[in-house]
This record gives sequence, C-alpha cells and structure tokens, in this order.
Amino acid sequence: MSFSLGRFFKITVFGESHGVGIGVVVDGCPAGLSLSESDIQAELNKRRAKDPTISTQRVETDKVRIISGVFNGFTTGAPITMMVLNEDVRSEYYESIRYRPRPGHADYVAYVKYGGFNDYRGGGIFSGRITVGMVAAGAIALKLLSMLNIKVIAHTINIGGIEARNYDLNDVKSFEEAVESSPVGCADLNASQEMVNLIRKVNEAGDTVGGIAEVVIYNVPPGVGEPLFDTLDGDLAKAFFSVPGVKGVEFGVGFKAASMLGSQYNDRYSVANGRIITTTNNSGGIQGGISNGMPIICRVAFRPPSSIKIPQKTVDLTTYEEVNLKLSGRYDPCILPRALPALKSIAAVVLADHLIISHMIPRVLK
Amino acid sequence: MSFSLGRFFKITVFGESHGVGIGVVVDGCPAGLSLSESDIQAELNKRRAKDPTISTQRVETDKVRIISGVFNGFTTGAPITMMVLNEDVRSEYYESIRYRPRPGHADYVAYVKYGGFNDYRGGGIFSGRITVGMVAAGAIALKLLSMLNIKVIAHTINIGGIEARNYDLNDVKSFEEAVESSPVGCADLNASQEMVNLIRKVNEAGDTVGGIAEVVIYNVPPGVGEPLFDTLDGDLAKAFFSVPGVKGVEFGVGFKAASMLGSQYNDRYSVANGRIITTTNNSGGIQGGISNGMPIICRVAFRPPSSIKIPQKTVDLTTYEEVNLKLSGRYDPCILPRALPALKSIAAVVLADHLIISHMIPRVLK
Amino acid sequence: MSFSLGRFFKITVFGESHGVGIGVVVDGCPAGLSLSESDIQAELNKRRAKDPTISTQRVETDKVRIISGVFNGFTTGAPITMMVLNEDVRSEYYESIRYRPRPGHADYVAYVKYGGFNDYRGGGIFSGRITVGMVAAGAIALKLLSMLNIKVIAHTINIGGIEARNYDLNDVKSFEEAVESSPVGCADLNASQEMVNLIRKVNEAGDTVGGIAEVVIYNVPPGVGEPLFDTLDGDLAKAFFSVPGVKGVEFGVGFKAASMLGSQYNDRYSVANGRIITTTNNSGGIQGGISNGMPIICRVAFRPPSSIKIPQKTVDLTTYEEVNLKLSGRYDPCILPRALPALKSIAAVVLADHLIISHMIPRVLK
Amino acid sequence: MSFSLGRFFKITVFGESHGVGIGVVVDGCPAGLSLSESDIQAELNKRRAKDPTISTQRVETDKVRIISGVFNGFTTGAPITMMVLNEDVRSEYYESIRYRPRPGHADYVAYVKYGGFNDYRGGGIFSGRITVGMVAAGAIALKLLSMLNIKVIAHTINIGGIEARNYDLNDVKSFEEAVESSPVGCADLNASQEMVNLIRKVNEAGDTVGGIAEVVIYNVPPGVGEPLFDTLDGDLAKAFFSVPGVKGVEFGVGFKAASMLGSQYNDRYSVANGRIITTTNNSGGIQGGISNGMPIICRVAFRPPSSIKIPQKTVDLTTYEEVNLKLSGRYDPCILPRALPALKSIAAVVLADHLIISHMIPRVLK
Repeated sequence: MSFSLGRFFKITVFGESHGVGIGVVVDGCPAGLSLSESDIQAELNKRRAKDPTISTQRVETDKVRIISGVFNGFTTGAPITMMVLNEDVRSEYYESIRYRPRPGHADYVAYVKYGGFNDYRGGGIFSGRITVGMVAAGAIALKLLSMLNIKVIAHTINIGGIEARNYDLNDVKSFEEAVESSPVGCADLNASQEMVNLIRKVNEAGDTVGGIAEVVIYNVPPGVGEPLFDTLDGDLAKAFFSVPGVKGVEFGVGFKAASMLGSQYNDRYSVANGRIITTTNNSGGIQGGISNGMPIICRVAFRPPSSIKIPQKTVDLTTYEEVNLKLSGRYDPCILPRALPALKSIAAVVLADHLIISHMIPRVLK
Repeated sequence: MSFSLGRFFKITVFGESHGVGIGVVVDGCPAGLSLSESDIQAELNKRRAKDPTISTQRVETDKVRIISGVFNGFTTGAPITMMVLNEDVRSEYYESIRYRPRPGHADYVAYVKYGGFNDYRGGGIFSGRITVGMVAAGAIALKLLSMLNIKVIAHTINIGGIEARNYDLNDVKSFEEAVESSPVGCADLNASQEMVNLIRKVNEAGDTVGGIAEVVIYNVPPGVGEPLFDTLDGDLAKAFFSVPGVKGVEFGVGFKAASMLGSQYNDRYSVANGRIITTTNNSGGIQGGISNGMPIICRVAFRPPSSIKIPQKTVDLTTYEEVNLKLSGRYDPCILPRALPALKSIAAVVLADHLIISHMIPRVLK
Repeated sequence: MSFSLGRFFKITVFGESHGVGIGVVVDGCPAGLSLSESDIQAELNKRRAKDPTISTQRVETDKVRIISGVFNGFTTGAPITMMVLNEDVRSEYYESIRYRPRPGHADYVAYVKYGGFNDYRGGGIFSGRITVGMVAAGAIALKLLSMLNIKVIAHTINIGGIEARNYDLNDVKSFEEAVESSPVGCADLNASQEMVNLIRKVNEAGDTVGGIAEVVIYNVPPGVGEPLFDTLDGDLAKAFFSVPGVKGVEFGVGFKAASMLGSQYNDRYSVANGRIITTTNNSGGIQGGISNGMPIICRVAFRPPSSIKIPQKTVDLTTYEEVNLKLSGRYDPCILPRALPALKSIAAVVLADHLIISHMIPRVLK
Repeated sequence: MSFSLGRFFKITVFGESHGVGIGVVVDGCPAGLSLSESDIQAELNKRRAKDPTISTQRVETDKVRIISGVFNGFTTGAPITMMVLNEDVRSEYYESIRYRPRPGHADYVAYVKYGGFNDYRGGGIFSGRITVGMVAAGAIALKLLSMLNIKVIAHTINIGGIEARNYDLNDVKSFEEAVESSPVGCADLNASQEMVNLIRKVNEAGDTVGGIAEVVIYNVPPGVGEPLFDTLDGDLAKAFFSVPGVKGVEFGVGFKAASMLGSQYNDRYSVANGRIITTTNNSGGIQGGISNGMPIICRVAFRPPSSIKIPQKTVDLTTYEEVNLKLSGRYDPCILPRALPALKSIAAVVLADHLIISHMIPRVLK
C-alpha cells in the first residue's frame, strides 16, 4: 500500500524483478500532451546496462508499450499505463538463498514484513529494476516540464571517494554534453575516467562501491512547493529515498551549512534582467519548502550495491544458525550510472505534481 | 494545503508566529491512551527558550490547552486538538520590512506564492514557532511509542564545526542524561561547553551558526515502513524537512557510504538473544525502506538561523531596488538546542503513523 | 482518523457536543479572499435553533472566533481555524445512560468501536452539533463560490410525508426568499405551514419525524468533477452522508429513473444564448461524474431524530439485559430546518474543492 | 487524477472501452492470500453479456491475466495488477459522432473537460466496460471478506417499475440461488420473468430501461466505518456512484424514512445468541457511519442506458447547430443484470479497505 507517489500527478508502480515485467500507471497527466512510445523509450534506454565492465550482465531490451491514456498521439486525461516485460530472468538460483538473507539487501525485512510470502527472486519489488517504472513515468513528467523550459540534469559527483571537481553548472549545454558523454555520468571527464577505472577494479575483486549524485533543476519558477509538510525539498527527498540504495539527501550547501555562520550562508537578494535572484545559492533554490527561482541543487548519497561476490556470513532464517553465503548472479558494481535516470525521473515526477498543484501546469494543454 | 502529515495518525498544524497562537489537531490517535495537559506541557517546556545568552529573548509560557478528544483522562478516538496562545508578540517592526525580504528567510517565496497576502509578521507560518504544533502532537506520539518501549533521543553532534565525539549511544541511560544536562543537547559535555561558548561569541557578533543533530530511535520492531514510496526513511526525511532550517538528512553512515566498498558497508546478520541482529549498523536500522530491528540512526543538518544583526543587502519588492537591511528583533543564534524537541516529536509522529499502519499499535488500547 | 474532507480545499473538524466547543481547520483556501468573523457568523446563525416549538431548547450563541489564517481582513493561504465554544451544556444526565444505548443513535457503535472510551455526553462526535464545523467551513466555501456566481440553495421538500409542490426553482430570487421566510425552509408556503403544524404535533407527542431536503446549485460551469472515482456526485453524496441522520441521496430524477425509458430520460442537448444546455435536466446537472453546466439538483433523505421522549427498550451493555429507557434532554423533533445550512455548507465545500482541482478557482485571488 | 479508490486496500483502474484493454492495480492486499487467475475469472464471467436478447451483442471473452503481486499461488503484499484485453472492438463508427454528443452519455462533459483530447470511442473511460477493473479488484476483496464469513449479494429489485416482492433476505442460501438463477439477478422469479419480457420489448423498440439494485452484506462485525467523513455509508455511496448509470443510493428504509416517526424508525436493541442485535433494521446496518452488526442493506438506482436506437436531437460541437442523431452500435437495453457484479465488487473493495483500517483484516494472513 505504498506504490503510489504524488497527489495530482500520481504514479503507481507495479511489477517485480523476476515477474512478468514492470509497469506504471500515471494518473493526472494533463490532456493534450503529445506522447509516443518513443518518448518513453528514449528515457528507458538511458537506464539500460551498457558497458558490462561497469554494470550488470543482465541485459533487458526494456521495450515499452503504452497500454492506456494516449489516443491519436496525445494524452487524453485518462491514466497512462506503460509496461515493460522482463526477458532475461534467471530465477533458479534464488531458491537456494530463500531463507538466507543477503547482507545489505532487503531480504530480511521483506521476509519479516510479508511473513515469507514476498517474491524473493532477484529482490522482488526491492530490486533496482523497479526504477523502470519511475523512468517511464518520469519521461512523461520531463515532457511536461520542458513546456515550461524546466530542465533536470542528474550527474555523478563522487564514486568511491573520487570527486568531480572540474565542471560548470552554469554552462548548461556543455555541462549536459559532458555528463552524457561519460559512462558514469560525470561531467569532470578526468574524474570520470578514474571512476570507471575504480569500478572495474572493484568489480574484478567481486566487490561494489558507493557514490554521490547531484540533481540540478533549472528554470523552476518561484513559488513552487507548499509550506510546512508538503515542501518541495521534503517531497524530493522522500522520492529520492524510494530509489534503491539512497542513504542521504541534501540541498544547497547541505551538511556543510553546519559549519557556516549566518553572515556566510544567507543568500543575498538582487535583481538581474528584471527578475529577483540571489547572488549565491547556498539554499539550493528552495526556501521555506518553496522554490525561489534559482536552480534547485540537491545531492543524493548511494551506498555500494549489496550484492558482492566476496564470501559473507548471514543467518539461516529457518534454523537461526550463522551460515556462509557466496553470491553468484549478475550485479552492478556501482549503481550511480544507472541510478541517474531514476533520480532525474523521480525529481521530474515530484516537480510535475507540484507544478499542477501550483496551477502552473494547466489540466488541458492547448 | 499542506499542513497535514500522516495517513492514519494524522496531524494538522495551524497558527502563525504573531497570530492568536499555534495549535494542532491529531486525528487517528487510538482510543484509551491516558493523556493530560501535563503530558503535553512537559514536552513543550523542552523547546522553550531558556538561556538568553544562547537563545531568543522572546519568552513564551507555551501553556497548552487540550480542546477536544480527551475525556475522563483518556483519548476517545476523536481528534485531539491542542492550542497554545502567543503572548510575547511585538509585530510593529515587521511593517517596515514588509517588502524587504530578509535573506535566508522565506519572506520572498511567501510573497510570491501568496501574492503578498501572507502574514509576514515574524515569518508567519514559516516561523520556527510552528514547531509548537509538532511538539504538542509529538508528545502524544511519544506516549504511544513508549507503550512499545520505543525511545527517541535527538542530540546535537555538531555546531559550527565543533563535533561531539565522546558519547556512547548504547549506554542509553547515561547518554540520555548527558543530552538532557547539556544546554545545547550535546552528550559530549566537553564539546557541549565549546558549543555554548561559540554560540555566545557568535551571538555577541550579531551572527548565527548552523549545526547537525542526530536522532536515534531504539526498539523499533522489524517490519515497520512500506516499500518503494512510503518508506520509513523517506517519510522521516520528508518530516524532518518540515522543521525550519533543515538542509540535509542521512541515515546510517549516510554520505560516507559513497566512499565505502560493499564488503565494508554490508551489515552482517547474526543472532543475539534469539533475535536477528546485524553486527554493524551502517544502514542505520532501515533497509528497503523498512526497519530491521536495529536502532534507527539519522542525522539532520541545519543552516544557521537567517536573522542576523549584521547589516545585509536585499531588494525592495515594490521598487526592485537594492536596499540595506539592518534587522533588530529577537532571534535564536543557533537553532539546534530548540530544534531537538521538534525533530524528536516529528520522528515520533511518523513512527506512530507507521506502527498503526503496520497494525503494531491497535486502534483501541486496553 | 476521518475528520478531514477534501483534497485541495480540505476541512478538518474537531470537538464534541458537550466538550469545550466545535472547531474546524480549513486548509487550502486561496489567499486573498476577504473574510471576517461576521461572514462566518452569518451562516452559523442560520443553523441556530430559533422556534422552540419546532426545535431543541438547547440555546447556543455559536459565536465564532477566527484563530488563524486571516490577516488584515484577507485569507493568507495558511490554514484558517475557526472555533465556537459550547455554552449551554447539561451533561449529568448522560451518565445514567452511559451503558444503555439509545435506539437510533450511534451510542452502541461508538461503544464498540472505541472500547467505551468515547465521549458519550450528548452523542459526543456523533451529535448534530458537529455540523457547526461544516457550516463555518462552508461559509468560506460559499464566499469562494460567489466569486464564480455559483449559488447553493437547500430547501425542504418533504417532512413526514407532506410534500412541497408549489415552487419554481428557476425563479431563483423568489424561490430563495420563500425558502428563507419559511421556518422549515420550505418554498411552498402552504406546505410549510402544514409541516410546522406536524412538527409541533409530533413534538408534543414526544416523537420526531423525518424529511427530505433538496440542494440546488446554480451556475456551476461544465467540466467540474473527475471521472470514475472522484466524481462530483459521488463526492457530494459522501459528504451528505456525513450530516447526521442522512439515509439516502439522489441526483436529478434519482430513484424515479428506474421506471423510465431511455427515450424519456435522455436530456437532449440544445443551444441557448450561445451555450450548450439540455432542454430537460433529468440527470441533475451531472453526467459521468462531471458537471454539464445545468443546475445541479440532488435530494437528501433524513431519518427522524433518534431522541424521542416515548419510552423505548434497549440493552444494558454491562449486563446484556433488556431495559426500559425514557429519554429526557433537549432535542430537535425534526432536523430538516437546521440541517439545511449543513447540507448547503458541505456541498459548497465539495464544490470549492473540485473547482480548485479543476483550476477554475486560482490559488491566489486578486 | 481520480482513478484510485481506497486508502489501505487501494485500487487504480485504467484502460478504455476501445483501447488495448482494461486493467487494475490493487495495492494493499494482505500477503498470504491464496489467489489464482481462475478466482478472478469466475467473477469476471458473471458480468459478461450472455443473452443477446437482453444485453449487448459485443462479446468479450474477458480473459484475465495476473501481471504482478502473486507468487507461488499467494499474494505477496506487492501490488496485484490484472489485465483484460479488448477483443471485439468496432471503433470506426465513433468518428462520425465525435462532435455530436450522445444524449445521456458523458460525451459532452468529456469534450469540455479534456478539450477534445478524450478517447471518444465507445465512451472511452466513461464506458461501462471500465467496471471490468472493479470486478477484477472486487474478486480479491471478496476472497478477503470470505475469510471473515462476510457475504455480499447484489440483486435486482426493480426494472422499469416492475418490483421484486417475493423473496426472503434471511434465507441466504435460497435467496442467493434464486438471484443467480435469474437472467436479470432478481430473486422473485415471477418478477424476473416480467422483467426479462420488458427488457426484450424495450430492446425491440430500440429503447432502454432503468432499474434499482439492492446490495446486502451479511456478517459485517460491528465497529466498521469511521465517524463523520469516512463513514461506511458515505464511502459505499461514493463508490456506487462510480458505476456508470447510478443516480441514487439509500440505506435501510432510505427515502421512506422521510415519512416515518422516530417511534417507528428507531431500531430497538436486543440480545440474540449472546450478541447485541436490533429487532428491526431500518437503519440498514449502519449508524453514525459505522456498522452495527446487522446486515448492511442499500439500494442503488440506475438510469436507463443512454444509447437508444430511436432518433434523437443533439448539437454539433463544431457548429453549435442542432442535428439529428441516429445511433447504431451495440448496447445493453438494461444495465442491471451486468451492473450487479460491479456493485457487489465495489462494495467488497470498500469493505476490505475499512476492515483493514479497523485492523479486522491483518496485513499478513497465516
């Protein structure tokens, strides 16, 4: 009972890693948006595993089909349902570890919560594969945002301690091209190469590694977000925590604000081109839960993927005895490259919802 | 339209900094909970300003009154409404800065969002005073949690770069006593003294300073939280972002996970006293959005309070000209000491909601 | 956990019949609406008991106070809280019948649901007094609707079998004046007099009587309401069932449609003054859950009030023995006259919510 | 944005009359329920058109496929998605009437609401075919209810003025058998035959006819439903209004209560077999929005189906001129026989939701 996100642009995700497939229902999309399967496919392709030296060897075509809500090339106002079938599934292996929860994974909590009835194959609903639904829904949200000239870019700023340092958020075109040209989505191409090398090394050792992504949202008008509980930052944070592996979210200077004085932190208001701006953006574009018109900047920390090939210890849930666990299977050694489209998508979903709530996106597009 | 939090144990906060007062409606509290005004008052007293050298000089008695939902000393199952009047209000000053948004504050976004109709006195609904409603509601949630032996402690681990290092989360009694004995809620009493000194120094300079709080929740049974979107970490994070000044939230090792390998990060399962535990707690007690029975540990970053007495520049919203701004008024130089009760309370509200959703708290207590 | 209604214009009602008072929080009202306590008081006065020969002898002044959300005479966009104190409360009597559920009342179900912790004085939250909250919220909704020239009239069409026959919905001014001039809200003044006589007779006999109200909503633009589940008729019906005593709701020809042929029922489309109309209004202005621009017409059936002075039998919940019950106390012999403002108000709340959802009422009024 | 119903047992319906098919996502079903496609198929078969002399000639096999949420024969706690493809679709015809709204149908309001982008083929989302989703979801809800021995029966009590008179709700087995043996779902088999004759006659004349269904729910424990706004009767009513063609809903004696005295209406409490009962059931099993343990009885009025073959007048939306309309196509002359499964299903969905909210159905079935 928690597979829906959003209030007026509401997505409902369904499916499992090793089931029939993954799908999503998008309810509340305005009527009149031009939409085709290729719009969705383009975004889905971005989250597909490409380079087997830095990602899983499970290969899915992720061919999407629109099931409802689009007619004559436009959204109708009715729920838009999209579906991607699972094709490259190898489930037998999971029988052997059914009662042996993999460290780091959700196996144990799923077993407790669902009394053992959960689909444990490939992590079931807890698999990163569930982000297919987010990306499909996000493709629609991104199209809506583009009508307001809003742009979302998710990029990698840290993998295993290697930091991106050399990039310029304000040169949007170059920045985006650099991100897209990097196999790990890192705009600092030297750091990018180091990251790739690290992932390969970690992968060969049967290990995995964490990282930090940054999401930048350009051209959000001021006034988006609601005070107190349905804040834009709170809703973005909640949405990011739905992406498997996320352990932290911060906006603007984030945790660094702890060491700052008010005289250093406060973003001074000024006027540029007839619009109110702030001369710095320590707040990350959100104040009091509401956008202030500056770029929204947030960072999202990912733990290393849980599936490592190095032997581990766990507990057998039927005997409560400690047992050795040696995972085989096909895994991503670092989730960042494939998580970026999920972050971008889910951020777009949250924004589309808030823009409709703020009446900045109408219910019918003309 | 966003002053409610929770789905089953749902709180609705109302009021403004300089209005009649602050109140909260708690809908969904089980019937049969012993509850009196003194239960609420005890928590409210913890967020009152005490030492004027490290907090605001606005002094409110914050005397709470229960308006509905309690009968013969027990909750009835009906909405519980609580109200605290504002007493020490000085509003005239705010007229002069009505169109001059204070840097760091929500003045500008409120002006944009509400077309200038917002109550700008003392920040209106964006004031830290709104946390009175969270704390009053949290007092009820904390009583519910105590029935399951769940304990929530919020403490300060960083102010202005000074870090708490010397404390032991596992020695709960000593830990809590140390937190309560510190004027800044810091269990490392040496660090606490340094923090107090820093706040005084900053305050004398007319400046403010940020910090980091940590929230620890003991004895949450495994299985609390919902997969994908209504995750326990996501819901906690969203709730924390409703506390004014929060810029980041992380669970377990949080952002440090970025630099870790899977073989370092993964919490190994083991058995202790017949229960499944993990031998480390890098995940912070939540996996896949669901509690795993270990202590839930999260950290919350606060920016420095926005109101500084040092002169600043801003823009006059009627003329779009840059103007000088010199704030007077009464402000907290560091929000951590008074934010801890808010964090603890809002965490308790989220947990109570999830525990009822998980059917671990019944609808009638006997 | 069900004291809130609405998604965007959301009201949360609290209080009990014999507690401190009744209040309501309205979250989601657009900023910039001119609003004063006298606006609210005017509507609340309409539901007060006036003629003691046809209504309860409990006399409440129902003086309303606005607690939050209004500043300088305009709504701010923040939650608007309103409160009415209970003054004329006589609770001792209810102790004697605490375990003896009054037939027709919710005493028994409340006892079961809340394990006996419910406030049983005067019916607690199940009392008709709870409609004070609906009417206060409705006063705001009605002001919003009036900006779109939408008018809501609730009138009595049947009391105890006496039917109103002689009135004309289309002559709005005369119709409304007749309704307001009748002590039972019946536009057919002959029927009105018969109804008054019947109520007096029934009252003298210690009995009560039921009736039917009709709600007419003029000038709703076409396109309001959502398909399938959040239909305008479904939401209105659900809201009407929250008014104590309601047992049925129908739209347009309602139950009479069962005996009609499609060729009789179908409302033919035509054009008048450049607008699409239907030449009949059998559908009651709603098709497929969405307004079609014609007046919305619905009827609401009320059971007789449960409190009668005639001796009844019931069961003692502590002994499970049948016992005699002779109620004293102060009751309405017929609820229709005082229920009309509640119906009108709650209909206005539902409509305001849907109009904001349809973006026909903006979030800031200028 | 309104294709979801329920809060903890939540269904989301998607699809169109002439699109790919109809589907539904059920989120919140407890884990551990034995469930197969044949369970769903059995209910879906009940709403299929059978006798072409009294129902549409569109013939769909309505073969259901479970897409997610079931593993090894049991529900997993994850969303259950079910899908039925459309097979017998003939859409060309609808092009010719695209701008000529059919009287009685939702064509005009859909056109206004969605700016002409709506899928107008066969009524799109407003088609009775959407009830496939309700029935598939209801099949799951009915299985849950059967675990508590709760039984839902929907039957026809009036078609075109012909009333069922001769049946006994209390002889459940005979009653249900009679309902199932009747082609129109009427337990009074003489009336049933008259109804069939009437429908045939009406059908031959190119006309349609309305009717009234009654829904009886046995063995609901007392205490189900929430006070004030999320009442059991209000939620059932709202859900019934989502079934195409519904114009009225009443509980217990319903509209007849208007003519009753309190001394006649009040259901007296008594004890039978150690349980509290009422000796009459004028309230229809719900008081104050909460079940009292007696059978829940409600009646639902249907207008005649809108599609008649008799020539009608309408307006061309592009020219605003009145035009003649002569419908061909395949339609039900009376919707009652096929609406009964929808009513039963949607009632079961509402009840399952409320039973989970009341903690009477656990989150894991063992």
